[in-house]
Amino acid sequence: MRDILDIRLDRDSRTPLYLQIRNTIRDLITEQLLPAGFRLPPERRLAAQLGVNRSTVVKAFDELAAEGLIQSQVGRGTLVTSGNKLPGRDAWKTSLPMRWTHLFNRQAARVNDPLISDLLAQLTEGDTINLAAGVPAAELYPTADFAKICAQMLDSQPHELLEYSAPQGLIELRSYLARHMRERGAAIGPDGVLITSGSQQGLELIARIMVEPGDTVIVEEPSYPGAMQVLRAAGARLVGVPLDGNGIRIDILEQLMHRYRPKLFYTMSSFQNPSGNIMSEEDCRAVLDLAYRYHVPVVEDDAYCEIYFGSSRRRALFAMDGCGAVLYLNTFSKMMFPGLRIGWAAGPVEVIRQMTMLRQLADINSGTLPQAILAEYCKRGLLVNHLDMIRSQYRQHRDAALQALRDFAPPGMSWNDPEGGFYIWCHLPPGVGGETLLRICRNTRVGFVPGEAFFADGSSGSNCIRISYSRCHPNAIRTGVERICAAVRKLMKEGSSQTVKQPAEGLAPLALL
Amino acid sequence: MRDILDIRLDRDSRTPLYLQIRNTIRDLITEQLLPAGFRLPPERRLAAQLGVNRSTVVKAFDELAAEGLIQSQVGRGTLVTSGNKLPGRDAWKTSLPMRWTHLFNRQAARVNDPLISDLLAQLTEGDTINLAAGVPAAELYPTADFAKICAQMLDSQPHELLEYSAPQGLIELRSYLARHMRERGAAIGPDGVLITSGSQQGLELIARIMVEPGDTVIVEEPSYPGAMQVLRAAGARLVGVPLDGNGIRIDILEQLMHRYRPKLFYTMSSFQNPSGNIMSEEDCRAVLDLAYRYHVPVVEDDAYCEIYFGSSRRRALFAMDGCGAVLYLNTFSKMMFPGLRIGWAAGPVEVIRQMTMLRQLADINSGTLPQAILAEYCKRGLLVNHLDMIRSQYRQHRDAALQALRDFAPPGMSWNDPEGGFYIWCHLPPGVGGETLLRICRNTRVGFVPGEAFFADGSSGSNCIRISYSRCHPNAIRTGVERICAAVRKLMKEGSSQTVKQPAEGLAPLALL
Repeated sequence: MRDILDIRLDRDSRTPLYLQIRNTIRDLITEQLLPAGFRLPPERRLAAQLGVNRSTVVKAFDELAAEGLIQSQVGRGTLVTSGNKLPGRDAWKTSLPMRWTHLFNRQAARVNDPLISDLLAQLTEGDTINLAAGVPAAELYPTADFAKICAQMLDSQPHELLEYSAPQGLIELRSYLARHMRERGAAIGPDGVLITSGSQQGLELIARIMVEPGDTVIVEEPSYPGAMQVLRAAGARLVGVPLDGNGIRIDILEQLMHRYRPKLFYTMSSFQNPSGNIMSEEDCRAVLDLAYRYHVPVVEDDAYCEIYFGSSRRRALFAMDGCGAVLYLNTFSKMMFPGLRIGWAAGPVEVIRQMTMLRQLADINSGTLPQAILAEYCKRGLLVNHLDMIRSQYRQHRDAALQALRDFAPPGMSWNDPEGGFYIWCHLPPGVGGETLLRICRNTRVGFVPGEAFFADGSSGSNCIRISYSRCHPNAIRTGVERICAAVRKLMKEGSSQTVKQPAEGLAPLALL
Repeated sequence: MRDILDIRLDRDSRTPLYLQIRNTIRDLITEQLLPAGFRLPPERRLAAQLGVNRSTVVKAFDELAAEGLIQSQVGRGTLVTSGNKLPGRDAWKTSLPMRWTHLFNRQAARVNDPLISDLLAQLTEGDTINLAAGVPAAELYPTADFAKICAQMLDSQPHELLEYSAPQGLIELRSYLARHMRERGAAIGPDGVLITSGSQQGLELIARIMVEPGDTVIVEEPSYPGAMQVLRAAGARLVGVPLDGNGIRIDILEQLMHRYRPKLFYTMSSFQNPSGNIMSEEDCRAVLDLAYRYHVPVVEDDAYCEIYFGSSRRRALFAMDGCGAVLYLNTFSKMMFPGLRIGWAAGPVEVIRQMTMLRQLADINSGTLPQAILAEYCKRGLLVNHLDMIRSQYRQHRDAALQALRDFAPPGMSWNDPEGGFYIWCHLPPGVGGETLLRICRNTRVGFVPGEAFFADGSSGSNCIRISYSRCHPNAIRTGVERICAAVRKLMKEGSSQTVKQPAEGLAPLALL
């Protein structure tokens, strides 16, 4: 029998074992290698032979029975039914369902991250204080100005705004952004700018033109999970360079560049997500120096640069770079609102051109109407005013969070004091794990993101959490931090026996926003 | 000398020869293999040695001189300058420019199609009659309704419309589309629908989860160039199944499936771009039969299905399919307007889920505001009315084009009589080539797309052209067709000696729209 019923299980496969068993038997039946009337081995024996639970075999047999391929008969066991044959000329009516997962390629296997869809619902759950999502505060959205400009433009030039437009982006918006960046020291013209559907698309395009499966990419540790997902999906092997209290470890970065000859170095140099780190000017120079010496391009994701609480912002790596070694990404998602999906990439013209050709294939162009509205919004000087306003608002958010930490945090808990951006990075007291803490906090209706999500290895950072102060009102932030601190105290009292690690599934994706 | 100055040229590379020469010499200098004072061979001799034009070497030397690496001295020839050394610790100020093209991956080499950016300008060039672009007529855009709904929604729920939303798409829009498709016979719920940024993104997602470099994909011949680009960029080898006067050649399709075991079959079953072909119900069944027997999924691109001129439309392959073997793509770009970048994919839930995970990485979600406006537009019944209106309008467009062909076409020219869609596919008289014709027609201010763009091999179809009757007013269509026919007559008179093939660069990309 073993000769005929040769079932080989791949325990590393994404296909569940019972489906692997079902598929093999189904193939054998439809290919008529198992004839009608063939008696399958008893479930228990087959399970033992394959080294699986009996329930796994039962499930496989149930599926095959539902498809009419096998049948259990009292006293005779499980038999292959008659009438099974190769799909023939009329198969379009009666064929077996297409088995798609067999047809997916290797790329698909690298893209298996949970969907954020359901989790987005949490954003609007009234009574949970959301210190998880890195999303701007809705009440700060410049909706009135946006609606006004939208109406005016649809009235004055309706057709143009609803047409296809250049894959590289509307020239009006690219010109504004290039000027905006020149004012901050970058040598860039509109030709060096590509409008993208959020900075997410910018990073994806870079990964897709640069990364070959197996390439090493260096990321900061901790780093932004959305970026790590994209780089991994392109086949990159991620290696982390630590951020410590003094910023990026340049010495380790050099070792890594020397050892791995990486394809890219991905960094958020200003108000990093999640650490809040801002790269010092000296570190910026050292990073560029290494990039030049090892011929490793830098991808600078600058999504939070405008949200600074000091008197001004530091120059971007992109602006300091004299050799065209930096690709720059930014977005309107954090400084205005995310739903329009408009961001931009900037860099050497030959890279922007290659990215543009790929983006033309991917989706032709970003929405014409939102680009036109944003260009007009910027041109009228409204963006500058809006940024002034949100800086002072988010500063109050940050202050509320820091004050609450000072008031409520137990001994052993520490955190940074961010000079901009949306995030506070907290180290928990010894023995308190971020994911355990989150399970308790779900009951007390407050959310944050446990630290593991931000590490390339997926397991470091278990004693850290990211608190986002962007979304909620300062009063709610204070209450939320108080609840988190109370939960920390509770865990400290209960001792480490209660803090057995169990992944709190499904919340980490909020860190992607 | 040959030992030191070992320049190897790759004539298949996308890097121009002069840059290859420059790069090699630059490497040799910066790696100090060519010492300061080294005398380079005379340009003429190096050119002869490498088998290139002298101007190529001159260009390479000019670049090197501009970088300060070499210097010409009267009477001494061209010397390597002193002071060239390996980039050192302070390199960030003085280093050579990053050479990006060396860093691009294999994927990038497959994406080198011309940009449509500049060509879009032709859409608005006042005095050229545009029978090239497959873009709807701007005067038919439902701009007033769109603007009204946009204003109402931004007034009533401004925040939600500017937030991130589910990567799979707004449930309101997915529900409408699933219902719309169920009314046309498909067994589909909202879970089987993914909102995409145009059908372009839908096809790209499918290609990216399914196609492994080297896989064969079958396309119709002729077929839509934008689809062929996407499939090629994913690494597919395209094989064409001919469409003839009686539709798709099922016999050849079977041979191809048997021989190549392809990964996918891509088809436009209704009002195919560019042939206007509509697959008969019998052919649909035969295609599904082959898909089941050979386990080859069908990708059905149905962008033109609603633009039918008969009394009703045929069921889609997707609706006839009983085995979940068809992935379906559609878009609002042709039935409403293209600038919003909203389309949808439909298929088995496991495929839609895998596509959604990838789209989440690619750009998180399609614009929230345009999705919400479209959902409301559809819900109010406005789409149904709009479709009724444009069917009768485009029917008049088609009639004008056909009448003009009957009135003006010379003998030997033939064309189809499309029952829907945007296109007429014309066979030119013997000896008249589409690209030659286009060069003449540029002078007489009328545009169309030469046939080569629609063939997987890029060279068949030279005696065909695609005339799009969607964009222009019927009067302009008549004038445009008259001009094309006059140019055909002119070429027929001049004889084939004048019709030497010379690619008319840069117009074919309009076929992508």
